[in-house]
Amino acid sequence: MNKHDLNIQPERLWQSLMSLGEIGETQKGGSCRLALSSEDGKARDLVSQWMRDAGLTVTVDQIGNIFGRRPGTNPDLPPVATGSHIDTQPTGGKFDGCYGVMAGLEVMRTLQDHNIQTEAPLELIIWTNEEGARFVPTMMGSGVFCDLFSLEDMLNTTDRDGIRVGDELKRIGYDGDLPVPSHELGAYIEAHIEQGPILEQNKNTIGVVSGSLGLRWFEITVKGMEAHAGPTPMKLRRDALYAATFIVQQVIQMAKDYHPIGRCTVGILDVHPSSPNVIPGEVRFTVDIRHLEAHLVDEMEARLRKMCDEVAQGNGPGYPTEISIKPLQAFPPTAFDQQLVASVEKSAQSRAYPHETIVSGAGHDAVYVARKYPTAMIFIPCKDGISHNETEYAYPEDVAAGANVLLDTMLAQAKISSR
Amino acid sequence: MNKHDLNIQPERLWQSLMSLGEIGETQKGGSCRLALSSEDGKARDLVSQWMRDAGLTVTVDQIGNIFGRRPGTNPDLPPVATGSHIDTQPTGGKFDGCYGVMAGLEVMRTLQDHNIQTEAPLELIIWTNEEGARFVPTMMGSGVFCDLFSLEDMLNTTDRDGIRVGDELKRIGYDGDLPVPSHELGAYIEAHIEQGPILEQNKNTIGVVSGSLGLRWFEITVKGMEAHAGPTPMKLRRDALYAATFIVQQVIQMAKDYHPIGRCTVGILDVHPSSPNVIPGEVRFTVDIRHLEAHLVDEMEARLRKMCDEVAQGNGPGYPTEISIKPLQAFPPTAFDQQLVASVEKSAQSRAYPHETIVSGAGHDAVYVARKYPTAMIFIPCKDGISHNETEYAYPEDVAAGANVLLDTMLAQAKISSR
Repeated sequence: MNKHDLNIQPERLWQSLMSLGEIGETQKGGSCRLALSSEDGKARDLVSQWMRDAGLTVTVDQIGNIFGRRPGTNPDLPPVATGSHIDTQPTGGKFDGCYGVMAGLEVMRTLQDHNIQTEAPLELIIWTNEEGARFVPTMMGSGVFCDLFSLEDMLNTTDRDGIRVGDELKRIGYDGDLPVPSHELGAYIEAHIEQGPILEQNKNTIGVVSGSLGLRWFEITVKGMEAHAGPTPMKLRRDALYAATFIVQQVIQMAKDYHPIGRCTVGILDVHPSSPNVIPGEVRFTVDIRHLEAHLVDEMEARLRKMCDEVAQGNGPGYPTEISIKPLQAFPPTAFDQQLVASVEKSAQSRAYPHETIVSGAGHDAVYVARKYPTAMIFIPCKDGISHNETEYAYPEDVAAGANVLLDTMLAQAKISSR
Repeated sequence: MNKHDLNIQPERLWQSLMSLGEIGETQKGGSCRLALSSEDGKARDLVSQWMRDAGLTVTVDQIGNIFGRRPGTNPDLPPVATGSHIDTQPTGGKFDGCYGVMAGLEVMRTLQDHNIQTEAPLELIIWTNEEGARFVPTMMGSGVFCDLFSLEDMLNTTDRDGIRVGDELKRIGYDGDLPVPSHELGAYIEAHIEQGPILEQNKNTIGVVSGSLGLRWFEITVKGMEAHAGPTPMKLRRDALYAATFIVQQVIQMAKDYHPIGRCTVGILDVHPSSPNVIPGEVRFTVDIRHLEAHLVDEMEARLRKMCDEVAQGNGPGYPTEISIKPLQAFPPTAFDQQLVASVEKSAQSRAYPHETIVSGAGHDAVYVARKYPTAMIFIPCKDGISHNETEYAYPEDVAAGANVLLDTMLAQAKISSR
């Protein structure tokens, strides 16, 4: 067969995405389907039925991950899998997660349409609680599947009202029988909206994701001396905010030295006592550092510590202050599987989709799966780079393109045995 | 008489200050006497009685200002007045305001001890609600007395529980008969703790206050673009906090160009949406600008506007953002009466108290009185520059020194007629 004889059906994929988005639909056109809510349950029921309709065998494991299996001609091979999540943020969009699941479903439907059989089995996975908006941690289902969290701990995790994950799984009928992990994967390819502005900015349709950034979070506390703004002359001040601004600027400027991959963000900055005529006595702020290479994340952390020391010692332009650094959280960088990444790129190239190599700045189930199995991701643009927002949007032609690349990549991996 | 035959009694002054501080005393040794509270009423009763014991005739005006008059030999002359306030912040100290009233009382007691008569009458004034902690605005009593606020508006001002100033004055028995203003003043000299660190730092006992700083408050809003910290590369960001840090730094650095009088403070800075992995989309902060000369305050405001424009246009090192400036409040600079200021300095000099010329950075009743009548202030050091705090403290020798300077200055103005 000529490979481009085989194409997904763009209209069917779009309609499925829109239908799924109607469950828990918000007034502004987004979706609210918190993990393990009744809406999540309804969405799981709908997509499971669609999976069965596409000829897949559906099973559920003890953390509620759903697997839709399409047999291969060689039952000894582990499945070539795809998937994502269908839970959302409280004011989430219709594309984050859902796109990956619907693209995978469309691949299965397309193979069914054309009666194509693969050597390796194929699998469509819906991971439990990727968002972490109701139950922390994020990426819970893929985390347990990849041995990063214990099943028992996760089942006992509670939301703000004290409701257990285990009890909610049971209530919505997704407390499955399969142990976790239930099986090995041969490969995992996840399609996702970019959740950032790069592809749109560069007018590219496909992002060939080479890996995901390592992340470290810190809380920095700058202590100065609270005093009255009126009677205190400038040279006698120890202004915690003034000192903090130098660190904030150096943090952002440091990211530019690690251009274009390195990223640094100060997202929270609280000033005490917070009165117009009181010189700030204490400032606390967060620093988020990301890079694709572990040794560069180390280097960035070392520079952060050095700049804090310099400002504290008053060698910098700030006033002498006390500065402390508290690490909050860390994820190592993850490089995706080179052969799979090349396969994604080859598909985009042969279909003449404008594409570029890109890194994932955010966490995804694929980032956890990559710790155990060969993994890749396919990004498509999202409008204005906006995500985790009811206005989140992706264009139908990009939605279709990503699913075609997913189709090609899965088939290249699983190998067509007959049609 | 040799002028230094006449001295106040340090021990009596200190004891009166400490006794007054016991009304509404807090656990940490400060005072809580919110304006027109029952505690304020008790303090007014006590000090009024002390005034009468010192031979003063006590009257009260319709906004509750208390006047203790000591007659002069020439009844046609307006009184040479002193005073301050005895209301406090919720966790105030024993010295702010109370020191000025007790120093004035000690002057009256000293003159009584020595049977001294002056040509001009003398007057000790307790102004209503200087702090503004319960009823806004601050400096309410002196403001009505000096035609800055209408009596009716002030009587109708309510606290957070909706209780009116007029009703509280009646409840505590200080809804006086005298119209406001009831009379003219010949001069006004107010003693006060510095509420800043300068005198202590310079090891001076007396601050000869030449005037009070003009003040302008602004709220600055920087709008950028909220986005995810992970997927958004540095060059595509519009980080409102990063942009804001350049304005904050330039504001503080500007104050140094107006050394040593100019002062600039950013006391509030709020970041939205305030999440560790979200690039700040909006930052709001306050700017407090002070200087002694009106044209320099104008110049500083113009520079503030220019630096905001530059950062907004991205000509500065920040990213392009929208910046708006909203004026919140303004007080003009006030120069005190040159002859009275010279008189304060002469007293400090002749008594060999280490002294320096200083400006008042904070608001005081004297600042309002200065708009109508010749006015001066006498500052004494407060420990570590701390005020509006239960740990506020002034040393007994400085407390005595300031009262002696007040005595000299009032007598120089009112002229001794006999003893």
